[in-house]
Amino acid sequence: MTATRTETVMAEIRGRVARRALAPGEKLPSIRRLARDMRLSPSTVVEAYDRLAAEGLIRSRPGSGFYVTGAVPPVALADVEPRLDRAIDPFWVSRQSLDAGPEMLRPGCGWLPPAWMPEAAIRRAMRALAKADGAQLTDYGATRGSLALRRLLVRQLAAEGIEAGADQVLLTASGTQAIDLICRFLLNPGDAVLVDDPCYFNFQALLRAHKAQIVGVPYTPTGPDPARFAEALATHRPRLYITNAALHNPTGATLSPQVAHRLLTAAAAHDLTIVEDEIFADLEPEPSPRLAALDGLSRVIRIGSFSKTLSASIRCGYIATRPDWIEGLVDLQVATSFGGPSPIAAELVFRTLSDGSYRKHLAELRTRLARRRREALGQLDGLGIRPWTLPRGGFHLWCRLPGGRDAAEVARAALRERVVLAPGDVFSVTRSATDLMRFNVAQMDAQVLRVLARALG
Amino acid sequence: MTATRTETVMAEIRGRVARRALAPGEKLPSIRRLARDMRLSPSTVVEAYDRLAAEGLIRSRPGSGFYVTGAVPPVALADVEPRLDRAIDPFWVSRQSLDAGPEMLRPGCGWLPPAWMPEAAIRRAMRALAKADGAQLTDYGATRGSLALRRLLVRQLAAEGIEAGADQVLLTASGTQAIDLICRFLLNPGDAVLVDDPCYFNFQALLRAHKAQIVGVPYTPTGPDPARFAEALATHRPRLYITNAALHNPTGATLSPQVAHRLLTAAAAHDLTIVEDEIFADLEPEPSPRLAALDGLSRVIRIGSFSKTLSASIRCGYIATRPDWIEGLVDLQVATSFGGPSPIAAELVFRTLSDGSYRKHLAELRTRLARRRREALGQLDGLGIRPWTLPRGGFHLWCRLPGGRDAAEVARAALRERVVLAPGDVFSVTRSATDLMRFNVAQMDAQVLRVLARALG
Repeated sequence: MTATRTETVMAEIRGRVARRALAPGEKLPSIRRLARDMRLSPSTVVEAYDRLAAEGLIRSRPGSGFYVTGAVPPVALADVEPRLDRAIDPFWVSRQSLDAGPEMLRPGCGWLPPAWMPEAAIRRAMRALAKADGAQLTDYGATRGSLALRRLLVRQLAAEGIEAGADQVLLTASGTQAIDLICRFLLNPGDAVLVDDPCYFNFQALLRAHKAQIVGVPYTPTGPDPARFAEALATHRPRLYITNAALHNPTGATLSPQVAHRLLTAAAAHDLTIVEDEIFADLEPEPSPRLAALDGLSRVIRIGSFSKTLSASIRCGYIATRPDWIEGLVDLQVATSFGGPSPIAAELVFRTLSDGSYRKHLAELRTRLARRRREALGQLDGLGIRPWTLPRGGFHLWCRLPGGRDAAEVARAALRERVVLAPGDVFSVTRSATDLMRFNVAQMDAQVLRVLARALG
Repeated sequence: MTATRTETVMAEIRGRVARRALAPGEKLPSIRRLARDMRLSPSTVVEAYDRLAAEGLIRSRPGSGFYVTGAVPPVALADVEPRLDRAIDPFWVSRQSLDAGPEMLRPGCGWLPPAWMPEAAIRRAMRALAKADGAQLTDYGATRGSLALRRLLVRQLAAEGIEAGADQVLLTASGTQAIDLICRFLLNPGDAVLVDDPCYFNFQALLRAHKAQIVGVPYTPTGPDPARFAEALATHRPRLYITNAALHNPTGATLSPQVAHRLLTAAAAHDLTIVEDEIFADLEPEPSPRLAALDGLSRVIRIGSFSKTLSASIRCGYIATRPDWIEGLVDLQVATSFGGPSPIAAELVFRTLSDGSYRKHLAELRTRLARRRREALGQLDGLGIRPWTLPRGGFHLWCRLPGGRDAAEVARAALRERVVLAPGDVFSVTRSATDLMRFNVAQMDAQVLRVLARALG
């Protein structure tokens, strides 16, 4: 009897209990029968049942057999895969950053400090909205969301050479919710999904919630490795590939036109759908190649939000996709949220984006970030921390720690000094970014550098 | 060969394609092999393959076998069950009502007109918020949402005798999203879920999205039939029961203390979790029995929102549940939406609920609705339309049409005259409410009554 066989039996029973094929109080198959069905020896099943009983999932009634106890754990996200140490799971950065008190410093977080945002324009939009028509303040919105904002997005798409009608755009409560809806629409549990390795950590958390099989493709400074991408398509037949356009998260790298073309050619050969997340696009000095622009929204779904350049408090994202998929997505959004963003949020976004000051805000943001990136590169260099690539824009620097230091250990040490860092492995499906770390240049100050120096020892 | 056997084979292949066990381009099992595996005659499999080829799902390559075509339909919600005629599916009312232009009349919709909402208080809250701290306007919120609003909800729960800490409350983007999160947390595809028959139509749409097996329990004027409820528990071993507390949707009925007690006793015996949706509670003249109050949030999860009495544009809902489930729900919400409601929305709700005028608004609303219910009952009586029960509050009247008229037909006729009605079968899992209809007394006027009279012929 090998440990592997015993664990197979345990996994089988856990699965049946989790999907309620075995309900609390129900009797398990007899040892003899399960051994026969699974073509294993009875002693393997005995061992498995004993271990499950020790865990409390089942209990033995002498002379009668084994029964499921009442204590069925709910399907927790962390149970979809073996629970990793919270210190390096995909929630490490998001939970720590979102719930950090004002006394915490957050060079690991993925957004700009409030002082960098177009506060005055938002206040103007809010004062104007306080005088708006009553229905806007109290009524449900249309199922696709604000037509004015969708038209504005259509004009932005057109500027990229992407033709789409306002009916092809669906507003969502956030960029994440946009991807979530698409996953609900296209995925079944067990479907393979490609992501970049490294990728935005929440893609992994989201895909776990969908019980998808997550496959990482090594990311290079010009995009995912095209040969490995094609290999992954042939091997895993994934339904989706989810990626960041413009400034890649966490690396800050830019897709090259050659790689973009090769990805789309491979995708066409394998009927792969691609979700291209544009969330950092407005931080680019000039537009980089886009999969959606080459493909024209045939197999590429564009999603985005306004959390990085306008406001993360005004929750609003969007999906732009082929016309025949929109109705299904709208139905799903009604079923699961009874609509998308708050109509008030969509209106605030529309008014702020339309405000004459917004383009100037973006230009200033880009200049200020270029200066901060240069400064931060110098400061990190002083600690022996070197960039993996030099980003063209944005606020992320993906860096290698000196001497092969374990970024998770450094992050734990920094947390004790009230600094939230983003260790590399939270971004890596294969957990092969152990000595890498993502820094947010807009959230760094002298205290962060002091703590970092101490944590590096 | 019977039609049933052929269809079994077709369903099997469709299932494999849907869950990508058979990918586009992949060869199907040979006729001989599938016939053997499914213990059917080869001619049955031939017939099934031919019909699937006619549908375009597979194609024959002469001399080689059958292959899956590229045209795999995405998993549309309506495909989870056989697609019903849109005129009577659970989306009929929501899609028609949400996307109706201002020229449409909506006596079928489930909310109050803007003029009934506390517009002045919302404008005040918005002007105040325009002057708030910059972080509130631009930064992400904490993962559980505004502490101030959660504390207010905890005080409301305490007033009902329900003890809960602010940590047990999670703000969500809507009441629907609250239930969606709970379903994601607790359900696996195929799990049975009980709902009332009739129930709020979107419960059905939501449960379809979760691929749950939906089981209806006949609803009586004092709550679900307790004997049938217990029967359903024994037969289907459901994981969840989802219901409206206070004013039941669509009937407007009130749960009796005896029924509440019997439901909870049966639920305890079968380890059933109950979601109690309080969305209409503030419209009750005085509080009715609550499952959560009897149970104390042990097996009852309380959810609610502010869309019916404050604003449907300010999207915000909540979950109150046992302490050991909250972290898992928070993780899920971060993974799938990167947070709950817009912090701005939560702040507007908090400020409006805390505004001295809000209690007065509710009192006036209740008085005004009582008058409108009386008027509407008289007007409907003139058309031979009789209430199934007399609600104690709220804006819904669940009524029987005269002469066994088909409510779906009447609704289709009214739609041609720009009036959106809510035919009974959209609320009924068993579609046994054919001559019933839900009316919103706050959305009825002389024109609605004229169109209704004509549609009834």
